[in-house]
Amino acid sequence: MNYGGIITPMITPFKKDGSIDENATALLIDEIDRYGVGTLFPLGSTGVFPYLSLDERKHFLKSVRDHSKGKTIIAGIGSSIVQESIEIAKFAADIGINAIVLMPAYYIKPNQEGIISQFTRVLSHTDLDLFLYNIPQLSGQWINIDTIEYLKTEFSQIRGVKDSSGDIRYFQQLTQLVSGDFTIFQGQDDLLYSSMMLGASGGVCGTTNLTDDAVRVYNLIRRGQTALALRIQLKVIVPMMNYLNSTTFPTGYYLYFYHKNNISGGYRVPMVEPAETSIRRIIDGMSFLVEESKKYK
Amino acid sequence: MNYGGIITPMITPFKKDGSIDENATALLIDEIDRYGVGTLFPLGSTGVFPYLSLDERKHFLKSVRDHSKGKTIIAGIGSSIVQESIEIAKFAADIGINAIVLMPAYYIKPNQEGIISQFTRVLSHTDLDLFLYNIPQLSGQWINIDTIEYLKTEFSQIRGVKDSSGDIRYFQQLTQLVSGDFTIFQGQDDLLYSSMMLGASGGVCGTTNLTDDAVRVYNLIRRGQTALALRIQLKVIVPMMNYLNSTTFPTGYYLYFYHKNNISGGYRVPMVEPAETSIRRIIDGMSFLVEESKKYK
Amino acid sequence: MNYGGIITPMITPFKKDGSIDENATALLIDEIDRYGVGTLFPLGSTGVFPYLSLDERKHFLKSVRDHSKGKTIIAGIGSSIVQESIEIAKFAADIGINAIVLMPAYYIKPNQEGIISQFTRVLSHTDLDLFLYNIPQLSGQWINIDTIEYLKTEFSQIRGVKDSSGDIRYFQQLTQLVSGDFTIFQGQDDLLYSSMMLGASGGVCGTTNLTDDAVRVYNLIRRGQTALALRIQLKVIVPMMNYLNSTTFPTGYYLYFYHKNNISGGYRVPMVEPAETSIRRIIDGMSFLVEESKKYK
Amino acid sequence: MNYGGIITPMITPFKKDGSIDENATALLIDEIDRYGVGTLFPLGSTGVFPYLSLDERKHFLKSVRDHSKGKTIIAGIGSSIVQESIEIAKFAADIGINAIVLMPAYYIKPNQEGIISQFTRVLSHTDLDLFLYNIPQLSGQWINIDTIEYLKTEFSQIRGVKDSSGDIRYFQQLTQLVSGDFTIFQGQDDLLYSSMMLGASGGVCGTTNLTDDAVRVYNLIRRGQTALALRIQLKVIVPMMNYLNSTTFPTGYYLYFYHKNNISGGYRVPMVEPAETSIRRIIDGMSFLVEESKKYK
Repeated sequence: MNYGGIITPMITPFKKDGSIDENATALLIDEIDRYGVGTLFPLGSTGVFPYLSLDERKHFLKSVRDHSKGKTIIAGIGSSIVQESIEIAKFAADIGINAIVLMPAYYIKPNQEGIISQFTRVLSHTDLDLFLYNIPQLSGQWINIDTIEYLKTEFSQIRGVKDSSGDIRYFQQLTQLVSGDFTIFQGQDDLLYSSMMLGASGGVCGTTNLTDDAVRVYNLIRRGQTALALRIQLKVIVPMMNYLNSTTFPTGYYLYFYHKNNISGGYRVPMVEPAETSIRRIIDGMSFLVEESKKYK
Repeated sequence: MNYGGIITPMITPFKKDGSIDENATALLIDEIDRYGVGTLFPLGSTGVFPYLSLDERKHFLKSVRDHSKGKTIIAGIGSSIVQESIEIAKFAADIGINAIVLMPAYYIKPNQEGIISQFTRVLSHTDLDLFLYNIPQLSGQWINIDTIEYLKTEFSQIRGVKDSSGDIRYFQQLTQLVSGDFTIFQGQDDLLYSSMMLGASGGVCGTTNLTDDAVRVYNLIRRGQTALALRIQLKVIVPMMNYLNSTTFPTGYYLYFYHKNNISGGYRVPMVEPAETSIRRIIDGMSFLVEESKKYK
Repeated sequence: MNYGGIITPMITPFKKDGSIDENATALLIDEIDRYGVGTLFPLGSTGVFPYLSLDERKHFLKSVRDHSKGKTIIAGIGSSIVQESIEIAKFAADIGINAIVLMPAYYIKPNQEGIISQFTRVLSHTDLDLFLYNIPQLSGQWINIDTIEYLKTEFSQIRGVKDSSGDIRYFQQLTQLVSGDFTIFQGQDDLLYSSMMLGASGGVCGTTNLTDDAVRVYNLIRRGQTALALRIQLKVIVPMMNYLNSTTFPTGYYLYFYHKNNISGGYRVPMVEPAETSIRRIIDGMSFLVEESKKYK
Repeated sequence: MNYGGIITPMITPFKKDGSIDENATALLIDEIDRYGVGTLFPLGSTGVFPYLSLDERKHFLKSVRDHSKGKTIIAGIGSSIVQESIEIAKFAADIGINAIVLMPAYYIKPNQEGIISQFTRVLSHTDLDLFLYNIPQLSGQWINIDTIEYLKTEFSQIRGVKDSSGDIRYFQQLTQLVSGDFTIFQGQDDLLYSSMMLGASGGVCGTTNLTDDAVRVYNLIRRGQTALALRIQLKVIVPMMNYLNSTTFPTGYYLYFYHKNNISGGYRVPMVEPAETSIRRIIDGMSFLVEESKKYK
C-alpha cells in the first residue's frame, strides 16, 4: 500500500447532547470526497479522540469505514494506556482499516527510550502499517529524529511520520527520510506549500473538513503551478487558520462545519460553544474566504 | 470532614512485568504510615494514573482502601474522558473513599469555560468532596484563580486546591481562599516551607513515599520551629528532589522505593528503567541525604 | 559597610521632551526618604538605564548623590560594553557612590564562563563593592548559583545578589549564601514577604518610588508581625504591581509618579505614554490601593 | 538602489587582546568577495556590535568601507540609546555607506508603539535607506507585521526587513510585502531554501563568513536547480550551523574563521574561547563539511 497526498484529520461530528452524530459523519465524508481528498484520518486531534470512550472510538471507526467510499483509512489509536492503543489497533485491523497513527503517551511524558518502548509494545500486537505522530504542543514531548530513524530501521511496519509541530527546521530534517516506503506528512495546513517544496509526501489538513483549498494547493504543486499554489496558501489558507484557531482548538472547525452544512450540532464536554461575537467573526471570516478562494484559478 | 497536613501522592508499585504489585502497595502504606502521614492520594501524577486502565485503577483504589489503616483517602479521577472520571468517582464513593481530585482534561486543552463545564458535569454525578488540581506542566492548562473562585462559590463539594505549578505568585493568590472549609495544598515538596508561611493548609509531597522529611518540616512549622524547618527543606528536600527528578518524572521515586525496600520492582510502559549511571547517582545521592537528614534535629 | 533592608530602584524622571528632570529627581528622593527607605539604586531597570547615554548616566548619578540625604547609593553600571561599565564604575567611585550593581551583558548573551570574564574584567578596574544582578527576563541569561559561588569566593568586593527572576526556587538556593558580608535581595516587590521568610537581606522594591508599603512589610516582619505583613503584601502590593505592570514595563511607575506629584513628566523614546483608558485604569487602581493600604495597621 | 541576493553579516575579527584586527578584516572581505557575496553587513549580531564602543564601531565601519571592493554596505546601527543609533547613522552617511539596519531597543523592551517611536525618531535624522531587523530571540521583542506595514507606508526610506526569528509562518507573512522597492531577507542560513521558495529577496547568511554554500544555494535556485540547492542546504548548511552553534553564539563563527585563515585571533569580553573538545569538534565537523560540499555539483 502506498500513502501520500492530502489526508483529512476528521472532526467527530456531535449532536446537541454531545453524542456522536452518525448522519453528520456520513455527510462529512461526502463533503471530504467532493473536495478530492484520498485518505481519511479519524480519531486524530481534530477529532478530539481523548474525549471519546473506547466504545465510542470503535463505533466511530466502524461508521467511518461504512461510509468511506473506498478511501484509504488511517485510524488514530492515541492513548497514554498502551493496552488501549493495542485494543483499538486490533479492532481497526478486524474491520479492515488500512493503517494506524500513534503519538507518544501524554500527560506523563515518556523520554525517548520510553517512546521506543511504547511503539515497540504496540507493534508487537499488530500487523497494520503505522505512522508516528509528532505533535509536541499537545503531547508535551518531541519524537527526536534519532528515535524516528531507530524505529524506522527496526520496524518495517512504520511507514512514515505526521509532523504537526509547525517547526520547519525539524520538518526539513524529516524530509530526508522520505522514500518510496516512508512518507512524511505536514500536519499544519498553512505550511503545506513550504513542506511540499521540501519534498513532503503530502499533508494532513484540518481545513479539508471544510474546503478543498489544501487539495488545490497540493494538486497545483504537483502540476508545477507553484506560484498559484503559494497565493492560495497565503491568501486563503493562512487567514482561514487564523479564523478557525481564534477560538480554543479545535472548536472552530466544528462550528463552521455545522454552520455550512446547516447542522444543529453540539460539542463534547469540555468543549464549549464559543461566545456569540466569536461565532460571528469566524463564520463571517470563513464565508468571506470561501468566496475569496474562487478568485485564485 | 476536615482536610489538611501532609498528603502522600502515592506511587503505584509495579512488578517486573509491569503489573501492579499489591504486596508492595501494602508495604508502601506501612512506610507512609511510619512517616506520620495522615492522608493517602492514590492515582495522582506520581502514581502514573494515565498509564493505568480503568479496571486497574479501581483495583488499586480498593487495595489502597483495604490497607489504609484508617487514613483519609483522596482518589485521583483524572481523565480527558469525563465519563471515565465519573465512573471512578462512583466507584470511589461505593468503596468508602473520602474525596476525589481532578485536573482539567489534557492533550486537547479546554479553555476556562470548558474547565467549568467539565467539573460541573462530574459534580452532577457524585456527592464526594472534590479537590481541584492545578498542574499546568502536565495538563497543559492553568485553572485561573477566577475559575476557582467561581467553582468554589457554585459547589460546596469543592473543598480545596492542590497546586503543583511551582509558581509561588499563583500560590500566594490561592492562599487567600483558605478557610475552615476550603484548603490549599502545595504540590511541590521543595516549596512546602514557603507555602506554609503563606498560610497553606499542607502539602502533597511525593518524597513522603520515601522519607519523613516533609512531615517533619510541616510539624516543625506548626510548632513554631521555622528555622529548623527551613534548614531541612533546603539541605535535604531540595537536593532530594534534584536527585529524584534527574531522570524522567516520576521514575526516580519508583527506583528509590524499590531499592530501599529491597523490592525487585518494575515500570509500566512507557516508563523505562534509567541507565546504570543514573541509577547509581540517584541511589547514592538519596542514601547520603537520608543520613544527612538525621543531623537536623 | 553593611547592606540590607529596602532599596529603591529609582525611576529616572523625565521632562515632557524626554530629557532628565533634575527637580523631579530631587522630589522623588524626598518622597523615597519620607517612605523610610535607606538605600537608593539609580540606573537600574526601572530607571531605564539602557535608554540613557553615558553622559546622562553620570549626570544623573551626580544629581542623585547631591540630593541623597546621606543615604547609601548603589549605582547601576549595566552595559554590554565592558569598557562602559568600567567607566561608570570609576565615575561612581570618584563622586563617592558606595557600591555598584551589574547584570550579565545582554542581547548577545554570554555563557557562564563569559559572565565570569565580564565581572572579572570590571572588578580589576574598581575597588567599589559590587552586587550581582540576576534578571533573566531582561538580560536573557541566568547567573547560575555555581557562578555566583565562584565569583563570591574569588572577589571579596562582591557583596551580594539582587535577584529579580521571580523564581522562588532559585531564590531559596541563593538565601543559603547569606552571611554578614554577603546579602541577597529580592527584586520583585510581590515576593518580598516570602523572601524575607526565607532569610533574604531585604528587597529592591520598585513600588517604593510611589508608596511606603514595601517598607512597612519589611519593618513588620522584622518586628515579628508577619500576619499583617502578609496581608499588606497580598491586599496592597500584589494588586499594585498588577496595575503598574498592566502597561509596558516600567511605564506604569513613571505614569503614577507624575500623577501623584502633579508633575507634567515625559517618557524617553522608545517608551510611550499609555492609551487614555490604560492611564485611567492605572491611576484609579493605584489611588484606590493607596487608600486601601491605610486599613492595614 | 536595489537590494537583494546574499548578504554577509560580518564577524568583527579580534586580535588576541580583544581589540579589532584591521588586517583580518581586510582578509575577511577578500574571502567574502571570493565567495561571490554582493553585500556586506558590518555591525550585526554576528559582529557582536553590542560589545563594541561607539568609536570602535565607527572605526570598523570605515575600515570595512575602505576594503569593500565596491560592494554595497549596509551598516548595523543597533542600540537601545536612540541617540547612539542616530550618531552611527550620520557617520555611516558621511563615509558613503549605502544603508542601515536597526532592531527594536533591547533589554527594556518597547511595545509596538514604542518601536514606531524609535524608528520614527531615527528616520527623522537620516536620509539613508533603512532595513528593519526582527530578531526576537536576542532583542526580546517581535516587530509585528502590522507595525512593519505601518512603517513601510509612512517612510519610503524603509526598504525591507531582515527576519532572523526562524519562524517560517511569520516569514511567509512577510514575503507578501516583497516588491521592487521592498525586500525581505532571511537571517537564518538553514532556512534559505524555504525562504527563497516563498519569494524572499535573499538571505543574510552568517556562514558566508566562512564558505560559499549559501551563495551557491541562492544561485542554484535562481537558475531553477532547486533540487541541488535543497541538497546543499540539508547536507551542508544545516549540519554546518549545528556545529557553529554548538558553542555560545557567535563564538563558533570566529573560531572557524581564525582556524581556516591561520589567524591567531581573539575574543571580545564577555566572549570566551570554547573548551578544547568543543574547538576540536567544531573544526573537525566544519572541515568535513567543506569537503562534503564539493560533492554537490
